[in-house]
Amino acid sequence: MMAFGVNVYSDGNLLSIVTPSSSHGTHVSAIAAACFPDAPEKNGMAPGAQIVSINIGDGRVGTMETGTAIVRAMSHLMTCSAHYTVDLINMSYGEHSRWSDSGRLGELANELVNKHGVIWCASAGNAGPALNTIGAPPNLPAATPGTILGIGAYVTPPMMEACYGMRQCVPTMPYTWTSRDPSGSSGGRYITVCAPGCAITSVPNYTLQGCEQMNGTSMAAPNATGSIATLLSCLKGLGMEYSVYSVRRAIMATAETMNTPGADPFAVGSGMLRVDKALEHLKQHHCSVDKDVTFIATVAPNEAHGIYLRDGVDLRSRVIERAVSVKTQFVNQDAADPVKQINFSLRCVLTCEASWVQVAKYVQHMNSTRNFAVKVDARSLPEGVHATSIRAFDADQPERGALFEVPVTVVVPIQLDAADPQLERTLSLQPGQLQRLFIQVPDAASSAAVTLKSLEQEKDHRFVIHALQAVPHMSSKSCEFYKMAGLAPGTSYSETFKIEGGHILEVVVCKYWTSLGSADVSVTVSLDGLRPSAPTLAMTAAEVLRLDVSDALRATEMAAPSVILKGQLCTYRPSSAKVAPLVDDRDKLPDGRVIYGLTLTYGFNVAKGGEVTPDFQFLSDTLYESEFESQMWMLFDSNKQFIAAGDAYPSKYSVRVDKGEYTLLMRIRHEKRELLEKLSDLSLQITFKLSSELKLDTYYRYNDALTGTRRAGTAQMRPGLRLPLYVAPLPLSNNNRTSKLSLSAGHVLVGNLTLQPTRAANDKAGQFPFRYMIPDVPRKSGASKPDKEKTSKQDEYQNALKDFKIMWIGRLGAGGGDTATALLEEVLANGERLDRILANSAKLQTLDTMQEKDAAEIVRRADAVIQDVDRARLLTYYGRKNASTEDQSVKNDMERERSALLDAISRKGVVLCECAERKQPADVFSMATLANIQDLMNSALEFAEPTDAKLLPFSVRHAVAHGRFGLALRYQQKIADDRPSVDNEQKVCELYNKLGWSFLSDHLARSRTVRFPAQYRPM
Amino acid sequence: MMAFGVNVYSDGNLLSIVTPSSSHGTHVSAIAAACFPDAPEKNGMAPGAQIVSINIGDGRVGTMETGTAIVRAMSHLMTCSAHYTVDLINMSYGEHSRWSDSGRLGELANELVNKHGVIWCASAGNAGPALNTIGAPPNLPAATPGTILGIGAYVTPPMMEACYGMRQCVPTMPYTWTSRDPSGSSGGRYITVCAPGCAITSVPNYTLQGCEQMNGTSMAAPNATGSIATLLSCLKGLGMEYSVYSVRRAIMATAETMNTPGADPFAVGSGMLRVDKALEHLKQHHCSVDKDVTFIATVAPNEAHGIYLRDGVDLRSRVIERAVSVKTQFVNQDAADPVKQINFSLRCVLTCEASWVQVAKYVQHMNSTRNFAVKVDARSLPEGVHATSIRAFDADQPERGALFEVPVTVVVPIQLDAADPQLERTLSLQPGQLQRLFIQVPDAASSAAVTLKSLEQEKDHRFVIHALQAVPHMSSKSCEFYKMAGLAPGTSYSETFKIEGGHILEVVVCKYWTSLGSADVSVTVSLDGLRPSAPTLAMTAAEVLRLDVSDALRATEMAAPSVILKGQLCTYRPSSAKVAPLVDDRDKLPDGRVIYGLTLTYGFNVAKGGEVTPDFQFLSDTLYESEFESQMWMLFDSNKQFIAAGDAYPSKYSVRVDKGEYTLLMRIRHEKRELLEKLSDLSLQITFKLSSELKLDTYYRYNDALTGTRRAGTAQMRPGLRLPLYVAPLPLSNNNRTSKLSLSAGHVLVGNLTLQPTRAANDKAGQFPFRYMIPDVPRKSGASKPDKEKTSKQDEYQNALKDFKIMWIGRLGAGGGDTATALLEEVLANGERLDRILANSAKLQTLDTMQEKDAAEIVRRADAVIQDVDRARLLTYYGRKNASTEDQSVKNDMERERSALLDAISRKGVVLCECAERKQPADVFSMATLANIQDLMNSALEFAEPTDAKLLPFSVRHAVAHGRFGLALRYQQKIADDRPSVDNEQKVCELYNKLGWSFLSDHLARSRTVRFPAQYRPM
Repeated sequence: MMAFGVNVYSDGNLLSIVTPSSSHGTHVSAIAAACFPDAPEKNGMAPGAQIVSINIGDGRVGTMETGTAIVRAMSHLMTCSAHYTVDLINMSYGEHSRWSDSGRLGELANELVNKHGVIWCASAGNAGPALNTIGAPPNLPAATPGTILGIGAYVTPPMMEACYGMRQCVPTMPYTWTSRDPSGSSGGRYITVCAPGCAITSVPNYTLQGCEQMNGTSMAAPNATGSIATLLSCLKGLGMEYSVYSVRRAIMATAETMNTPGADPFAVGSGMLRVDKALEHLKQHHCSVDKDVTFIATVAPNEAHGIYLRDGVDLRSRVIERAVSVKTQFVNQDAADPVKQINFSLRCVLTCEASWVQVAKYVQHMNSTRNFAVKVDARSLPEGVHATSIRAFDADQPERGALFEVPVTVVVPIQLDAADPQLERTLSLQPGQLQRLFIQVPDAASSAAVTLKSLEQEKDHRFVIHALQAVPHMSSKSCEFYKMAGLAPGTSYSETFKIEGGHILEVVVCKYWTSLGSADVSVTVSLDGLRPSAPTLAMTAAEVLRLDVSDALRATEMAAPSVILKGQLCTYRPSSAKVAPLVDDRDKLPDGRVIYGLTLTYGFNVAKGGEVTPDFQFLSDTLYESEFESQMWMLFDSNKQFIAAGDAYPSKYSVRVDKGEYTLLMRIRHEKRELLEKLSDLSLQITFKLSSELKLDTYYRYNDALTGTRRAGTAQMRPGLRLPLYVAPLPLSNNNRTSKLSLSAGHVLVGNLTLQPTRAANDKAGQFPFRYMIPDVPRKSGASKPDKEKTSKQDEYQNALKDFKIMWIGRLGAGGGDTATALLEEVLANGERLDRILANSAKLQTLDTMQEKDAAEIVRRADAVIQDVDRARLLTYYGRKNASTEDQSVKNDMERERSALLDAISRKGVVLCECAERKQPADVFSMATLANIQDLMNSALEFAEPTDAKLLPFSVRHAVAHGRFGLALRYQQKIADDRPSVDNEQKVCELYNKLGWSFLSDHLARSRTVRFPAQYRPM
Repeated sequence: MMAFGVNVYSDGNLLSIVTPSSSHGTHVSAIAAACFPDAPEKNGMAPGAQIVSINIGDGRVGTMETGTAIVRAMSHLMTCSAHYTVDLINMSYGEHSRWSDSGRLGELANELVNKHGVIWCASAGNAGPALNTIGAPPNLPAATPGTILGIGAYVTPPMMEACYGMRQCVPTMPYTWTSRDPSGSSGGRYITVCAPGCAITSVPNYTLQGCEQMNGTSMAAPNATGSIATLLSCLKGLGMEYSVYSVRRAIMATAETMNTPGADPFAVGSGMLRVDKALEHLKQHHCSVDKDVTFIATVAPNEAHGIYLRDGVDLRSRVIERAVSVKTQFVNQDAADPVKQINFSLRCVLTCEASWVQVAKYVQHMNSTRNFAVKVDARSLPEGVHATSIRAFDADQPERGALFEVPVTVVVPIQLDAADPQLERTLSLQPGQLQRLFIQVPDAASSAAVTLKSLEQEKDHRFVIHALQAVPHMSSKSCEFYKMAGLAPGTSYSETFKIEGGHILEVVVCKYWTSLGSADVSVTVSLDGLRPSAPTLAMTAAEVLRLDVSDALRATEMAAPSVILKGQLCTYRPSSAKVAPLVDDRDKLPDGRVIYGLTLTYGFNVAKGGEVTPDFQFLSDTLYESEFESQMWMLFDSNKQFIAAGDAYPSKYSVRVDKGEYTLLMRIRHEKRELLEKLSDLSLQITFKLSSELKLDTYYRYNDALTGTRRAGTAQMRPGLRLPLYVAPLPLSNNNRTSKLSLSAGHVLVGNLTLQPTRAANDKAGQFPFRYMIPDVPRKSGASKPDKEKTSKQDEYQNALKDFKIMWIGRLGAGGGDTATALLEEVLANGERLDRILANSAKLQTLDTMQEKDAAEIVRRADAVIQDVDRARLLTYYGRKNASTEDQSVKNDMERERSALLDAISRKGVVLCECAERKQPADVFSMATLANIQDLMNSALEFAEPTDAKLLPFSVRHAVAHGRFGLALRYQQKIADDRPSVDNEQKVCELYNKLGWSFLSDHLARSRTVRFPAQYRPM
């Protein structure tokens, strides 16, 4: 039912069993190369192709790809040549990266493609239709442009009929959701070509389906990959030379342009892949001087991969100049034929169709870097996005197509009226057609409201609204709003979302591709500026924070400020940090290069069960762009049981945990040991979700904040008004809510300042992150000791010595021998009542209720405790309803006495039950009558329930003694649940057996090594 | 030479001696009432007046007035009637308050004036010439408008000749510096009239001057007060009734308007005080129905004292309406004649000269509250400030002057071009003449640059530039820029200052009043928006902080970001909090009302001497407007010596302190006990100035921040550019700089983010407060213990018991008796070498080197230590240059051994010297030869300098034994300096005596009780 891979590494010391984590990979590979000799209609694109399957999705982190897996995959492809050679990669996986100019994975991808010459196709992503939605791997940071072929997805009329059962077909177009160029961080265009983005093909048998329909660029990529495989197969058959570069150029030069209403130039790259024409191209030009050469064009100053003029440039009054460098690079440059390198020479014609771009006409390429300047004059361009490319052609053979391109994208935003920052447009849209609106967002803006109103009279239509800002170094995912809205005639849809001031906002309205017919729709976007202005939205518990609330843009809002704290952020340093080379075969790079792993160990305690979110802020939210190869943490409980794991995106890895001690192991990998050593004291931040939210009081007047009167209500905002707002700290002392939290100095309570009244709890518009810092721990008001009676130094010494001895009676443990006995006798001889109780109780802890030899002593010590306890005084004390004014030290003494009593009764009870069963030793057995046991239990029940943690062991044995095995099982199960351990579970099994339920005890016994592992799961 | 007051309170239990803290008060009172029967030309305004002098300036806080003193003064005036009645107050003191709508001092001032009927004149302040510079007490929060007569200062041609020796006189005008209406917080105008602001008159004899010239509103106020005293004197002589209200109305109705080029309506109130005309007015109208009545006009919604339309109102497109309430109030309303109250009726005509204000024509007043609406239509007003008043006249007797006024002030700002936010104006100014420019400041602005350029060809001129923003709830002092600039022909002056975005900026250019001739000058104001935008400018040591740098306004700036940390902020909770009634006579209110005092005690340790700034953020920067009557802290060292005190303004009270333990007492006062109890856990924040600044590294790329490469340099800013900037935490571990700080979890390092490259260190423009939080304490890398050899539980117990016993040998102290001896012998018998050393050393601490009976044992124990120490091993250890890889536990052992050795040598040395002198006891005396003593010293000098703290006592005695008393004195003085105590100082005295310098020891003996007080100085 399920295929799995078994890999043996490191001379058999490491066994890796790999299973699919979903049906996605099977589907993808079937598109590329399914082979059904008997049912060729089910075949993939290249049914003869051999597939090497490498799993990069990790089940521990919800099938997310990990840096470790990607590095292992790339490393394998670079080193597998002893067994086989991989010509072509398909990767239908990806994330959005925060930048494109550096990162470890990109460096390795470069090595794989440019040195080893492997062709790599990757899905463009399904994050469209806004610009800047193309992600990694196509725009993998630090990879050279075009390293990876990004594949977009389109749909054709036959697909509409066959796959989607549409009653009417519309012209071929990209899917509404296919990701769009350019990349916000580099300005490059990474979608090479597009391919059909839907398929009905094989999935694993465990799904109990033979085939399944899926759609996405995940499906387009293997379609392209399979097609290219046939191309390579043909070239190989013909014995015709090609390179990763010549194939890419052929594909791009021969792709078919798309010119339909829904066709969006940012979605399709060079156009639809035409593998037959690409083959012709390769056949014709396989002897070109540049067959093994790529031209890498970068734009100063940041080695960008294109010219993308959007935020922060003054297009209206200035002409922009950019310098472009073009470097030639041979496949496996270091090993390339020196003669070829020396002789390489090519004259290129530079062209650009746009009249607003000026560039030099020619550039002569040698095996070196050439520079030219580009002038962009966007002063008279209308509002909207304008895209063109500078293309370089072989001056002698322009029909070969562009040798390289420098994409130029210019966004001319709409300037809104400062007094009424609102935009309204009426659009008429065909299926799949879209309209992009670019709005200049003032610095003071904090949220945008978009309203879509159907102007149709008859029919429902579906629209996608997608809004996105290009904030530097932020993933496009973190600055976007996306909504699919179905609109009945005349109805409208509205929503408000958070925006960043100062960055151009793209709002795309798209008629969803399956929504038939053309439709008129009006779209309104209005900006709001309700926001706090404070030097910082962080305060300590020793302060009143002042901030000003203002709305510079609109005057329609009421402000209703409140601060809600939701989590407790604690910081931990590692208890150990070890850097070591990773010695498994799967972790080795080519040429014997070594990857190092830093393993950090953190311990923390959970006082109350709940949700925790571990975060290594240094490394968070970076994966493909990370400076480090990978990072992963695993969380274990005190039984070394694996609880959860997490990778780059901490918000995805919140875990519910029970009370207890936990160990978190973090592994970070890199080729450079010294970079890892810099992280050897890396802090772990854990956010504990508060069991109920805390509210900080807000006030409009300072004196009100001091006296706690007249809290802030709603207030009418006006443009220009800056409304002072004061946030008061949590009540200073004796506060029940806060005093229940285990707060320590340095902890931070985290939450949000909300300014708008009617916001849903998880609506980010109008919410601003807020931090409340604990600078010190408040005194517990009851904890101060009363002035003791004056005691002499000698008495003080004697008391301290006695406490020291009692402590050591326990600490010496079972092997305490004569020393422990002597200590105990000393205390019993000289100590007071409570001292004797504590000493006997301490001794009891060192005796084993299961050991026959200890039985008599346990009974003796327990009886001594029971006798010494003043039961009447205890009952009187606990009988009172109200003891709030009680002296803390009296309370402590009472607690200790009660606890010692219950412990003694329980231990004696267990021993009696044990002896009753074992009928030995004789002296104890004589006491072990059912009546005595019952009396003992009765005396305990005056003070506690049978489920009291102290009493539970006795409760179990008591129930067994009375033949009530079901009840005993319930108690024993509680013990095992509260403190899971092999021993406690063993006792559960014994009761299962008593009840005749051996199948249950067998099951537990079989699975024990999984639940109580001997060591932490390897990283 | 100096007058002083002696007050005896509380049946003689409290003696208060009050001295002048400066010559200011004497000068002020002489202006009002100096009386020289033989030299009448030296007389004040009212030479027959009796003066009651009440000192409100406190020498402990730099002669600042304190809330306590002001409350005591007001309380005295309300309760002194048994001895005398005060008719008239002059108060030439004041501060700028943050709001005018609540505060404890205002409530009491109301009681004093409106219930007790005392007339109160106060100086307007010297904070002009910008608007909003009138301060408290005239605008005392919570006092009704007009409670206090605010007195501005003017200068006349005769004064210019007599006082200032000007070669040419200019017309009468207010001084350039006299404070201006209206009050930013309430919109009220509080300058009642103005009076001459300069005088040459008496000062105290201790200044060795008979007379002195001073100028200021401090001088104008007593001029008015003296004048009014003559008025009251005359009315009393005539037996004519008057009230605090009738006098105020007469003064305002008869003041002389000022109409000269330098006359500024915001400076002079109703005009120049004319006491003769006021007398006529009072005589004519002393029977008016409203003689004992005042009309209190307040404006909704915030009970403002005027209509002040400035920030946050849309004047250009809207008509503004405000509701005014007018309440009648009798003097001592509760006791006023009911018949008068019932019969009170008055028809008022309402007038306003301004065409843009509309108001009802009449209002009929009874003894109740009347309301009317005011409409302000400023839509067509030109740029600038426009002021008018709604005045109410008795319809039957309008010649009596206005019964009340509602001031209306409108500021119409200049809107700058968003693309080039700059303003240039050319002004032509006479002496004292000013021009106000009001600029609408965009939200994104962060600083303003002002340039003043002289357009004159011949002559130097002096100008004042004063810029101020009205930020709600902020003192006008905290949002202003002030500069006096002398300009030679053709030269210019420029400066940049910090501004708050979103608040109108007033820039006043004034030709200084003494600068003769008219002058043309051009003024340029340009705004800049370089600023960080981050959710918060606070980070923890576990994070990289991202912020965006932007300059929304101009593109001329380079950014050069850096973060400098300057202080360490620690938070303390009180160790005790006591609320108690204040029982001294001087702290009682009328009618037996009680004031409570909350006394909070804080202890803190200074690890390294330096500057500390205590701050109670809850109460900071509020005095006249405080919810609490007063607050004051006093700082004491461990000898209970008073070190410093502080009041409302923490930045004024930084203190340099030495290493040591300190106690800070805080006293807060209020009539309401429950308000004080809310503060019983009030946090104290102390900022310790770092001995050298710490720099946080900044980067433009995240990966650079992680790897510590390519720090941020200067960057060209462009409008619209938002430059990401990353602030990395201090290096994680083993950092020498940070590890030297005594950091604990919860501490905060405070400093600034600076964005501009060429800023002076204390230039606030371009600086933004920054906080760096310590969430946990880094592990000390050397402190981790190596895995110990496995020891048995019994051995562990024995070791622990031994350590316990050694600890108690010392802890039992001198009275340890047999117990201590037994412990010592046990350890010596069974312990190892280091144990024996530590035990003997512990015992040595309990013996007294001065006691003959202990001498023999000290020598014996010391010898035992000296013998046990392995000197060669110690010397070898300390001789090594480099011990960085050393095991920490070895280092600790070495330190302990060395310390025990030095201590033993020193104690033995002291005993030998003591016995040599005393010649007893015989057994020790026999050893106490000079040679032996010298040998002992030599053996110590192998390990330490004679000034080593351990060795110093011996060094002293050694020098004495050799007759080198001067050297001994130097050593003993060091002991006394390091640990000041009576005992150590006594020994210094003995050496003074040996040297024959008894005058020094006498001096120390006499002053000892002052330097070592028996208890803390009372609050």
